[in-house]
Parts: sequence; C-alpha cells; structure tokens
Amino acid sequence: MGTYAPRRRGFVLPMAYADDLEAVNARLVEVAELVGSAMFMATQSLLNADNDLAQNVIAQDERIDILTSEIEELCVDLISDQHPTDRDLRILIGSLRIAASLERMGDLASHVAKQARMRFPSPVVPEELRSTFEEMGTLAQAIVTKTAQVIATKDLSLATDIAGHDEDVDRLHLELFRAVLSPTWHNGVETAIDITLLSRYYERYADHAVSVTRRLITIMTGDPYVGVTLI
Amino acid sequence: MGTYAPRRRGFVLPMAYADDLEAVNARLVEVAELVGSAMFMATQSLLNADNDLAQNVIAQDERIDILTSEIEELCVDLISDQHPTDRDLRILIGSLRIAASLERMGDLASHVAKQARMRFPSPVVPEELRSTFEEMGTLAQAIVTKTAQVIATKDLSLATDIAGHDEDVDRLHLELFRAVLSPTWHNGVETAIDITLLSRYYERYADHAVSVTRRLITIMTGDPYVGVTLI
Repeated sequence: MGTYAPRRRGFVLPMAYADDLEAVNARLVEVAELVGSAMFMATQSLLNADNDLAQNVIAQDERIDILTSEIEELCVDLISDQHPTDRDLRILIGSLRIAASLERMGDLASHVAKQARMRFPSPVVPEELRSTFEEMGTLAQAIVTKTAQVIATKDLSLATDIAGHDEDVDRLHLELFRAVLSPTWHNGVETAIDITLLSRYYERYADHAVSVTRRLITIMTGDPYVGVTLI
Repeated sequence: MGTYAPRRRGFVLPMAYADDLEAVNARLVEVAELVGSAMFMATQSLLNADNDLAQNVIAQDERIDILTSEIEELCVDLISDQHPTDRDLRILIGSLRIAASLERMGDLASHVAKQARMRFPSPVVPEELRSTFEEMGTLAQAIVTKTAQVIATKDLSLATDIAGHDEDVDRLHLELFRAVLSPTWHNGVETAIDITLLSRYYERYADHAVSVTRRLITIMTGDPYVGVTLI
C-alpha cells in the first residue's frame, strides 16, 4: 500500500491525515499517467499494426483495474476510520469517482488495442484517415496529461484547455462519421464499423477526462455535480 | 426531498438513521424503474419510428440526472453528518456508485431514442433485424426489472438471472455484428453503423446493470469490487 500509513484509531493526527489525502491524490495522478500511456501505446499499435504493443496495453489494463480498486478501498478506509471534515469527505468521495472514470479510460485504451489486435496483421485505419487518428491520439494525450496535472496541482485554469481539446475530439469524431458515410467511401462496411467504434472510444475517453475535471471543480467549489448526457 | 428526514446533528437516533438508508434505497429503486421505463420507451420509439415518444425519453433523461445527483448529495450528507458504521458506510458508498451506473443507463436509453429521432420518419432498424431488437428490448427490460428487485430486496439469487440475460445480450450483439458484416447485407453503410451503435448501447446498458448487482454483492459480502474490462 506504498506510502499509506497504518490505521490510527482513537488517536487522529491531522497532519498525518493530510498525508493520507496526499497519498490518495498521488495514486490518482499515477493512474492518470498510466491511463495516458495506455492510450498513447494503443494509438501506436493501431497506426503501426503492432500486435506486441497492443497485447501490452491489454495486459496492463488489469493493473489499472487493481490500482483503481485499491484507491477505492483506501478512500473508504479513510472515511471510515478518521471521520473526515466535510471538505475532506468531499475530496475522498470525489476521488472515488475520479478513480472510476480513470478505470473506464483504461478500458477504452484497451478497446483501441483490441481492435488493432483483432485485425492484425492488417492495418485497421485506411491511409486517408491516418492523420485524423494521429490527431485523435495527440488530443487524447494532451487531455490526459492536463487532467493528471489538474489532479496533481488543483490548477483549475487547465479545465478550459481540456474542454477545448474535448471539443476538438468531438469535431474529429463527426469528421470520421462523415468520412465513412461519404459516397466516395471505398473501404467497405467492416472498416466503416471499425472506424466508428474506434472514434467513439476516443470520444468517450475525452468525455471521461472532462468528467474528472468537473469532479475536481466540484471538490474545490462544493457545487453539486449533475451528470449530463454526453454524446 | 421526500421521506428524507432533516439533519439531527448531535442527537442521532439509530432507528431514524435506518430510515435514511431506507430512503436512499427507495430512491435507487425509483431511478432504476425510471431507467427501465426509459429503455422500454426508447425501444418502442425505435421500432415504431415514433418521434414523440423518442422526444419524451430524451426529455426525461434530465430528470434521471437530477434524481441521481440528489441521491449522491443525500449519501454524502448521511456520511458526513452521522458517522456511519463500517457496514452502513459500505452501503452508502455502494449507493453512490449504483446511482452513477443508473445515470449512465439513462444516458444509453436516451442515445437509443436519439437514433430514432435522427432518422425519423424513416425506420432505423431493417425489417429482418426487427425481431433481434425486440429481443434486445425484452432482455433490457428483464435485466432492469430484476436489478430494481435486487436493490429493493437485496435478494442476490437474482444476480445469476441477470448475468444470464447479459450473456444473451452479448450473443445478440455479436449476431448483429455478423448481420451487418455479412456479404448479403444490402442496407448500406449508414444503417450498418446505426445498428452497430444501437447494439452497443443495449450491450453497455446490460453491462451497467451487471455492475450494479456486483456492487450490491460487494455491499452484502464486504468483498472488494475490482472493475473488469467489459466488451
């Protein structure tokens, strides 16, 4: 359990508790970075039809699942043992939710890698859409890097950047829809479906990052979080 | 806030607290039922190209979002004000997570309705796949009805049924994939993509129901929940 200090029932040291919250946060940052590297590698495996790399991403996802589950247990332990203040409780509940979003982002990276593995040794992405997926990958990378930074620093000014990148991902998502539905599409139904699903994975990945930053805003401001219907 | 009693800071009545937990549970059951009726109506709007019904589902989703957000606030208030026992804390944290899954199930019903609205007045589902989507709708209904029952009664024996229905949904999901990729497919790329996305919405809806029952098992048994990569 790393830097997580043992239970101190009956003798609560506020400073040590602050350390525990710091430990939760450090673990969230760690998972956000893992999830970012998973999507980076998944995109590479997709663009280069690299089956070994795809397998790697798929195998790593189990680690992400275990880490997020550990964060959850840690949060529940801290809530249970240390009667947190309202503010700290908000942080811990928010952290639970952020861990769930990160876990799902890991799944989505794994879905991209599975698509690469399924078609191996054929490439999934037709040459004319390669640059669009490169851009998707770059945006996903920018989004997750900034999300990790927001978790680490609580600097909410990055939220605007993240929302902007998310809009760019939505734009590319629509562009890909238009491409597969265009009368000039000549890559068949199977590739059209592959592209649609892949595009949706990136789009959901970005949505979850936005959801993480919204959770952080809730933590910092105390305003309630209302789920919105994302595309 | 319905049956939810006002704060009782400094004078905690265990019996009243049990009532509060009961109130959280009743609200979860209520939302599960709403989410079930949303998917039922969405399926009808899809199969009958009924735009008014589709609009209805889409409009209702906002209510589901607000209700799940209220459940979340209620859980956080109860954790914060009443220093729950470990068991009650597990119930409240589990309820937070269940609310999140239900919110997402509402989104997915709304996605199905949006697909019906987008193609209106044309039907989305070709005649030869109609019965498959009828079956998807019936399974979704069975799953969500049983999920609401498990939440209400904590009768975990239904979990096996739910897992079985989920496998049936996965089977239909693969069947639909095969249909759109078959050489005899004559409905074009756009319909192939519509069918793929719709099928995924049902499949994800069922996955979330399974996730709710797994959360309930965690609540009842105390075993940790580890996220698994679903299709």
